[in-house]
Amino acid sequence: MSGEMNNSDKHVSLNLNIRGLTQSATLGLNDRCKKLQVEGNKIYRLGLGQSPFPVPESVVEALRFYAPQKDYLPAAGHPELRHAVAEYHRRRDKVEASGQIVLIGPGSKELMFLLQLVYYGELIVPTPCWVSYVPQAKMIGRNVTLIKTYYEDKWRITAERLESIFAKQNDRLRPRILILNYPGNPEGCTYTTDELKDIAEVAREYQIVLLSDEIYGQLHHQGQHVSVARYYPEGTIISSGLSKWCGAGGWRLGTFTFPKELEWLFNAMTVAASETFTSVSAPIQCAAITAFKGSNEIEEYLWHSRRILSALGMRCHNLLSKIGVKVHPPEGGFYLFLDFSNFEGLFSKKNIYGSAEMCQALLKDTGVAILPGESFERPCEELTARLAYVDFDGTRALQASKAEPLDKPLPEDFVDKWCSNVVEAVNKIVHWIAPVL
Amino acid sequence: MSGEMNNSDKHVSLNLNIRGLTQSATLGLNDRCKKLQVEGNKIYRLGLGQSPFPVPESVVEALRFYAPQKDYLPAAGHPELRHAVAEYHRRRDKVEASGQIVLIGPGSKELMFLLQLVYYGELIVPTPCWVSYVPQAKMIGRNVTLIKTYYEDKWRITAERLESIFAKQNDRLRPRILILNYPGNPEGCTYTTDELKDIAEVAREYQIVLLSDEIYGQLHHQGQHVSVARYYPEGTIISSGLSKWCGAGGWRLGTFTFPKELEWLFNAMTVAASETFTSVSAPIQCAAITAFKGSNEIEEYLWHSRRILSALGMRCHNLLSKIGVKVHPPEGGFYLFLDFSNFEGLFSKKNIYGSAEMCQALLKDTGVAILPGESFERPCEELTARLAYVDFDGTRALQASKAEPLDKPLPEDFVDKWCSNVVEAVNKIVHWIAPVL
Repeated sequence: MSGEMNNSDKHVSLNLNIRGLTQSATLGLNDRCKKLQVEGNKIYRLGLGQSPFPVPESVVEALRFYAPQKDYLPAAGHPELRHAVAEYHRRRDKVEASGQIVLIGPGSKELMFLLQLVYYGELIVPTPCWVSYVPQAKMIGRNVTLIKTYYEDKWRITAERLESIFAKQNDRLRPRILILNYPGNPEGCTYTTDELKDIAEVAREYQIVLLSDEIYGQLHHQGQHVSVARYYPEGTIISSGLSKWCGAGGWRLGTFTFPKELEWLFNAMTVAASETFTSVSAPIQCAAITAFKGSNEIEEYLWHSRRILSALGMRCHNLLSKIGVKVHPPEGGFYLFLDFSNFEGLFSKKNIYGSAEMCQALLKDTGVAILPGESFERPCEELTARLAYVDFDGTRALQASKAEPLDKPLPEDFVDKWCSNVVEAVNKIVHWIAPVL
Repeated sequence: MSGEMNNSDKHVSLNLNIRGLTQSATLGLNDRCKKLQVEGNKIYRLGLGQSPFPVPESVVEALRFYAPQKDYLPAAGHPELRHAVAEYHRRRDKVEASGQIVLIGPGSKELMFLLQLVYYGELIVPTPCWVSYVPQAKMIGRNVTLIKTYYEDKWRITAERLESIFAKQNDRLRPRILILNYPGNPEGCTYTTDELKDIAEVAREYQIVLLSDEIYGQLHHQGQHVSVARYYPEGTIISSGLSKWCGAGGWRLGTFTFPKELEWLFNAMTVAASETFTSVSAPIQCAAITAFKGSNEIEEYLWHSRRILSALGMRCHNLLSKIGVKVHPPEGGFYLFLDFSNFEGLFSKKNIYGSAEMCQALLKDTGVAILPGESFERPCEELTARLAYVDFDGTRALQASKAEPLDKPLPEDFVDKWCSNVVEAVNKIVHWIAPVL
């Protein structure tokens, strides 16, 4: 938290579930980066996970057009946008979806919070996981079961492990929300169709609510994202939004697409929406219709985005894996989850025994900012970290990619040329841990 | 709630604090209105409390200009906007305020929710009150003390009554949030400076957090709004936003301005913001800077808005009070709170014994939609209702007002001409309860 809560003052009366929570890890990191920059250091920003690409021009133009829209919209969202979102999932993900039961929120994060508030159940989260699932559960006072996954399993949860954990609880119909996030933050990996089918079977057996966080779905590097909603339609909520594939994180628009079997949950969440954020900003919702309806321009934008991210992600992966950092080739999104356990000996000589110390030392020594594994609910002493390969000018990179035919791979030197900051940063990491190379 | 939660289904597991809550009263009314319209009836929309005026052109232009802004902003809000909000309160309300401890939210409603979530205390609300304070407390599971106010007191809470209620609780430093809303929704009245001073004294004695909901402050009809923060600076949070004075309800931007003594609460709420809505839409925040910085155009817009609302409110007041409806002359905002208790006998002949039945019968018989007193936490059987005098074309009315010199009152026939729907609706009410006139 920026500035401390003054706990010695007798007037301070805070909800115990909030007390001690801090602003997301990113903020502290940003503060440290700024300080170092002020001192004249070059900083490589591979911490914050923000899309480097601009919002597609047709979507920006739509926002300009709808700027005078001033009316309150329905709590669940603009009917036309909700239908566009349903159609988007029908078209892209081949799932049943109806605009009647799509909910629009000011970011999917807010919707996840309201889901946890409204649903009375336990949260099940495989780790490493996105930074906000667990703090939200804490704020509301919900039980959380974290399931640690392993590098060897590509940081994926398996149906067998889920089944064994649920079986041990000896409470088949215990209300549970399982969150699956794929392509994933922080690890950039996804699930195979068979893996999803197996997980769907366990989900059905235990009748859980499956929150399928597919915010990076359209950034699957081969454009081959598959939703688990195809295999567990009756219990899956698809979470998406404009932030990642549309480059509009700061616009704040997220979507939840419900199956008709969970209409009661949609209804309860709509009530909660009407008593909290009311409805999402009208001009933003109107502009989002253009984004979700799609167009050739947006398709092209997506293919170029994917091609750049894939090439850059692979370049980073190759540089790091070559020297012994344990990391999987990226499949989607813009993250790599790095496991430095092979360098334990080296780090212990530097008095580094955990991910937070490791990232602080890296930043201090090289100017490269990445986020420690502990921010993703991994054990503090584990030497892991998330690298977001986004510190480049997305507008220029897109322009350059458009000059290259889409049916061929990008030239070998493309990312070194247009994403040079990221490649430079990764080389800094390489030389930091393997200076002799 | 639109669509019921299916409580017979064993999978349904809802937070008991949410179960049974319904979408705000406005929604059900809107549904009934639509049905009647489809059947060919003319409907007068005096239910929903939305500003009839357009967003000032310079503010719309700013949104167009900032449409490409796609970066996540800090959780507390855009620093320049926060400073503009602080300066706005310093300038208009003559209170101390620092942009460092201003929090921007997607509507002040969301901020009020987070305040109740973060602060561990009891909610104190004089009634009639705005529709969402109490449902929010229920969602979070907080205690609520409602203080019924009376027509004879202009629906105002007095310092004496507050003092006596707190004294009875026998717990001086019990953590409490008192909400004062003035000019008020639903009653259109405000407090005098002396009344505010007296309340401030009690607030100080009991060290309560005073949430001063001044969202209608700039719509004080004489432009003479006074904030209680002048008299209880150390414990007052000023709540404001773009929705009412700037006509931008659908844009969703609210502000909380904290005193430095409550910085710990600002910090805790900022953390809660970062884990829920993240930050408010960037283009909207950028546009809001123009609104809060103010300009001659905006000043003029405000003066014309006030003049129209005052003339129209007084016209409605006069028509209704003449036949015996108990109603106070409006002082700000765009509401009248009507007390039909003089017509109890008439209503009992129609088998009407409460505010909900009364408003339903009025809508059915005349097409005039107003909201029942029970939506504002008044007893069901009390024959009260809120009338929002907003069903007119604000753009045309503003243009017409601009053709009249600002230093003179509007011509006598102005509101009959430019706000004819509202006057017609009020005449319908008059003839409904006093057909012989």
